[in-house]
Amino acid sequence: MVIIVESGADEQIVEDLIGKVRSLGFKPHPIYGVEKTVIAVVGEKTQDKVEVLQTMPGVQQIIPILKPYKLVGREVKTESSVIEIADGLEIGGERFIVMAGPCAVESYDQFAEIAQYVKEAGGHVLRGGIFKPRTSPHEFQGLREEGVPIARAVKEETGLPFVTEVVDVRDIEMLHEVADIYQVGARNMQNFALLTELGKVDRPVMLKRAMSATVEDLLQAAEYVVVEGNDDVILCERGIRTFETATRNTLDISAVIALKRFSHLPVVVDPSHSSGHDWMVPSLCKAAVAAGADGLLVETHRRPQEAMVDGYQSLTPPVFEELMGELPAFCEAAGRVL
Amino acid sequence: MVIIVESGADEQIVEDLIGKVRSLGFKPHPIYGVEKTVIAVVGEKTQDKVEVLQTMPGVQQIIPILKPYKLVGREVKTESSVIEIADGLEIGGERFIVMAGPCAVESYDQFAEIAQYVKEAGGHVLRGGIFKPRTSPHEFQGLREEGVPIARAVKEETGLPFVTEVVDVRDIEMLHEVADIYQVGARNMQNFALLTELGKVDRPVMLKRAMSATVEDLLQAAEYVVVEGNDDVILCERGIRTFETATRNTLDISAVIALKRFSHLPVVVDPSHSSGHDWMVPSLCKAAVAAGADGLLVETHRRPQEAMVDGYQSLTPPVFEELMGELPAFCEAAGRVL
Amino acid sequence: MVIIVESGADEQIVEDLIGKVRSLGFKPHPIYGVEKTVIAVVGEKTQDKVEVLQTMPGVQQIIPILKPYKLVGREVKTESSVIEIADGLEIGGERFIVMAGPCAVESYDQFAEIAQYVKEAGGHVLRGGIFKPRTSPHEFQGLREEGVPIARAVKEETGLPFVTEVVDVRDIEMLHEVADIYQVGARNMQNFALLTELGKVDRPVMLKRAMSATVEDLLQAAEYVVVEGNDDVILCERGIRTFETATRNTLDISAVIALKRFSHLPVVVDPSHSSGHDWMVPSLCKAAVAAGADGLLVETHRRPQEAMVDGYQSLTPPVFEELMGELPAFCEAAGRVL
Amino acid sequence: MVIIVESGADEQIVEDLIGKVRSLGFKPHPIYGVEKTVIAVVGEKTQDKVEVLQTMPGVQQIIPILKPYKLVGREVKTESSVIEIADGLEIGGERFIVMAGPCAVESYDQFAEIAQYVKEAGGHVLRGGIFKPRTSPHEFQGLREEGVPIARAVKEETGLPFVTEVVDVRDIEMLHEVADIYQVGARNMQNFALLTELGKVDRPVMLKRAMSATVEDLLQAAEYVVVEGNDDVILCERGIRTFETATRNTLDISAVIALKRFSHLPVVVDPSHSSGHDWMVPSLCKAAVAAGADGLLVETHRRPQEAMVDGYQSLTPPVFEELMGELPAFCEAAGRVL
Repeated sequence: MVIIVESGADEQIVEDLIGKVRSLGFKPHPIYGVEKTVIAVVGEKTQDKVEVLQTMPGVQQIIPILKPYKLVGREVKTESSVIEIADGLEIGGERFIVMAGPCAVESYDQFAEIAQYVKEAGGHVLRGGIFKPRTSPHEFQGLREEGVPIARAVKEETGLPFVTEVVDVRDIEMLHEVADIYQVGARNMQNFALLTELGKVDRPVMLKRAMSATVEDLLQAAEYVVVEGNDDVILCERGIRTFETATRNTLDISAVIALKRFSHLPVVVDPSHSSGHDWMVPSLCKAAVAAGADGLLVETHRRPQEAMVDGYQSLTPPVFEELMGELPAFCEAAGRVL
Repeated sequence: MVIIVESGADEQIVEDLIGKVRSLGFKPHPIYGVEKTVIAVVGEKTQDKVEVLQTMPGVQQIIPILKPYKLVGREVKTESSVIEIADGLEIGGERFIVMAGPCAVESYDQFAEIAQYVKEAGGHVLRGGIFKPRTSPHEFQGLREEGVPIARAVKEETGLPFVTEVVDVRDIEMLHEVADIYQVGARNMQNFALLTELGKVDRPVMLKRAMSATVEDLLQAAEYVVVEGNDDVILCERGIRTFETATRNTLDISAVIALKRFSHLPVVVDPSHSSGHDWMVPSLCKAAVAAGADGLLVETHRRPQEAMVDGYQSLTPPVFEELMGELPAFCEAAGRVL
Repeated sequence: MVIIVESGADEQIVEDLIGKVRSLGFKPHPIYGVEKTVIAVVGEKTQDKVEVLQTMPGVQQIIPILKPYKLVGREVKTESSVIEIADGLEIGGERFIVMAGPCAVESYDQFAEIAQYVKEAGGHVLRGGIFKPRTSPHEFQGLREEGVPIARAVKEETGLPFVTEVVDVRDIEMLHEVADIYQVGARNMQNFALLTELGKVDRPVMLKRAMSATVEDLLQAAEYVVVEGNDDVILCERGIRTFETATRNTLDISAVIALKRFSHLPVVVDPSHSSGHDWMVPSLCKAAVAAGADGLLVETHRRPQEAMVDGYQSLTPPVFEELMGELPAFCEAAGRVL
Repeated sequence: MVIIVESGADEQIVEDLIGKVRSLGFKPHPIYGVEKTVIAVVGEKTQDKVEVLQTMPGVQQIIPILKPYKLVGREVKTESSVIEIADGLEIGGERFIVMAGPCAVESYDQFAEIAQYVKEAGGHVLRGGIFKPRTSPHEFQGLREEGVPIARAVKEETGLPFVTEVVDVRDIEMLHEVADIYQVGARNMQNFALLTELGKVDRPVMLKRAMSATVEDLLQAAEYVVVEGNDDVILCERGIRTFETATRNTLDISAVIALKRFSHLPVVVDPSHSSGHDWMVPSLCKAAVAAGADGLLVETHRRPQEAMVDGYQSLTPPVFEELMGELPAFCEAAGRVL
């Protein structure tokens, strides 16, 4: 780290700072500039002491030099991680993966029908919420326990793997029966109790970026899972909260590029939640491919007018099919296959 | 709700919309303007059908008229809620409440010493984290189970009630022994599993606003607790995430005023986490009193240089004591007593 | 517009509101709901009276129904505008336009050399700042007057049209000699004096979105130019200010899609200023094509290490050439030609 | 500045960096850490070369150590600036200054009447827009030239000094007749042509923070005025743009504290534009006093229902008078006089 000393600080204050650094087991390198003095601090785990030093008299600012994550970073593992979702299906490699399905599993009929469409159009993974965290307690919260047998049946019929959200540590076990990928929603990205438990599970975890999380925050949240032993984390960019109201959230397409550069983990994009408009979704899907994402998480619904959740941002089967027909050209331009 | 019809929509589309509204059990009132047609929709629980109608052809936008929360709103209960924290200590009434203490309980000695200072300076409630959710898994996470007996001992010695954060539904019971107020941190504001469980507890809950939550989101999160039967929710403004980097977060002082107007629940301000700078805290405390807050949540630490968490934003005992000496004049100007 | 009446408002207040609406020359349509009363207001130019009505007792909120822009909107002109930049070169049609060059014109040698590279790699328009608005007065502000003859010479040599920024109404005339497109920078997007003068000029105007402007704000700023008689406005998305610090700004790729849907004007993307990192630029360029933009504004520099401004986000000639080699496949997938 | 070297950079790259630093005339101090190498760069005006060095191979990040402003900073001038507004009226000293009046000067009668109320209630400075920059060109833009004689007449009658906005360099001279303080609006905060001209004027300039400007940006904009010779700059916090929609903007009360610490210039708060709600204004005024502001800029209107601009956020005379009756107690608590 580098300590910037306040402008007015006298010699004694600088001496004390240097002494403090030394007493913490680090090597201080003071540099006396024309207008400012800085102290470079060398040693292992200097990061842990940022807060302590920040309170010392004469400290204007402390600049950490090391990235605040390790295991998920490219500095530790340079090659990209390829994660197996199901037999013969991987994410993070050459294949571009499309996960599609309704926001919520509403009934066997609804889920089975749309699942068939997703499969026929070429989707790789089925999505569908059994538990739905909603902003208001007065809204539909998902089928919960009753959704599990429905999901199991539809998985068997289609042969597609299934990604679904877990919102409570007490549900991890129950969902293990059907979840090929555990999804952590944006609102729970920093629910560290949940992340820690998912770090002990033998399934991939898809971690959605919180609405106000920086790229660094997301990578640190992923670190919570990996540090417990589960390396298979898929990152998901789903839009951040900004002042713009033309969209539900602002899709941060640059974050896809940043995440791929700073981390070895696969990155998918959710254009449905980020935009909140069905008419925006196809163009955003193409932009995600072009930007270098490894996959998509798209909401589709047979009859959006009857959807219990998020119908207005869901693609109908014909629109989804058309999109799946257009994506290969973009994938090819990007050096991927669909 | 009011449905705004797209400009190009023909008569048939408007007819279909009107039919759909009627089929959902509501009364449609179409109004044909010079350039636009709108349909006002009258009936109970129209809110629940916003998403369904949003997907109909010809719908440009749907504007909900009712607030998305009920129980915590002033429309249902006009007088301000006064919540009993401990025998003879209430928040939301005339008395302005100061909750103070370290960010984390680190040891018996550390906590006992600062608690004594808080008490002597006139603080009403002791704060201190036993569980500390941290952005990185490599940082100190609190004393956890070992912190409980320490907190109990210090509570007994000082006689002050204690507010502490709960981060996992499985810890609610254990903390019941020491927590006079359960704190829900900003990162867990939309951890609905946790909110639902706290709705069944016989203790006040202090709900901190998430970094990207609107005033409406916060009130809807509070609704999750109240709907389960626990009316005693204290709201906490602790800064939102913006582009400004001079502060850790941007304290939204207007939110205090908005929350007091829209809701009957008490509102406290956390100037420590919002600013991230000890030198900013006293002025923000005074501004909070002036804006009409019901209390403060302030970090104090005996020796910030040795704090394991957030020392740089903690007040030392002399600064806290000075602040407590200055607050009465502001409280009086605001019609409160300290 | 629709007036939402406050919950507690009595009959007299509603009567007064209705009377006020009528006295302004509009037709009021009151609708009495189960919990709320709303008044739909019909007539021409109701928008102009929003502020007046907002102050009436009993008004909770007023919801404007009409978009706050007209001339630049698709409701007035449905087909996309195609703007002629120079003889035989149009933007907004099938051809995807690449504008490239250095952030600032620094000298004849620097500008002539990079211009040659831009031309050889297939760029359509040359960019280069003669006036550089900088956050600090202590930074390089551009060659100013001295840059004009340099730009003229290089334009003649390459035969490429030239886009350059104007920052002061008093410079419009001088720049007329060399500017094929007048650029309005993000900081001046709401400098209405400048926009009004540019509305009287016979050249296209490229209007960059301000860092905190919504899509609606940008379209209203464009309206300032068009209302004066200059229809040839090109919109430019260049990133908005958010909490994320991994990028200089957050490129709002969804805004491209929204602008193309709401307005008939061409839209270009500036990936250099939005990201602030040269390594991010090529991927963002591809994403812009895929999202449906009409062109790009890219910073290139022969020797970024010696650039006086923004070198770190400029592409070197080899990288730019490689990018120009990759774009055609994305353009083709998007139904465009480069 | 401090250069952080990329993790993989080899010896040669570090050597080249050190050579480059030396060739720019600075003294490099390389520090080889356990995981990272940093190079501290010592010398005068190192700031100017940040951009050049940022493009060198092997550079991960450059951290400037010096603040990007000088003349307006406390490091150059430690005591607070006291600015004379009119004979015997100063801002920045013990007296807390209230500037009040309508958003726009609409007519002699309107302005004269409200001016009288402002004076009687104890306001110190009259505000009123002669030029009104509006988001849409279809909205009222102020009386313009015709407003000048009205303002002059009302100033004479009341004897109050007058603050008014200038939006075009060509209007500075005309407004010199009536403006005791030239106001630069938020949208023009980085209109550097305007700032530069105002730096040559013999009147105080009130500079409003742009909606997306950081505290540092605002101070750098102020530097544009001061560097030209005009030291009398008053800073104005008027809310920043965030995701929150309960208020028109988010008043950044912490910015007041930061500005007072980092700069010697006076700071005023505009609670009207920041909140956009008349019912919020009085509490925000009190909070501004408590936070340490030097003054207020408040919108008042005799009959808000008839205001042509911003009536809904204007205080009526009785509310303003009540506020002026409550402020003294807060001023006294803050060590000020009204």
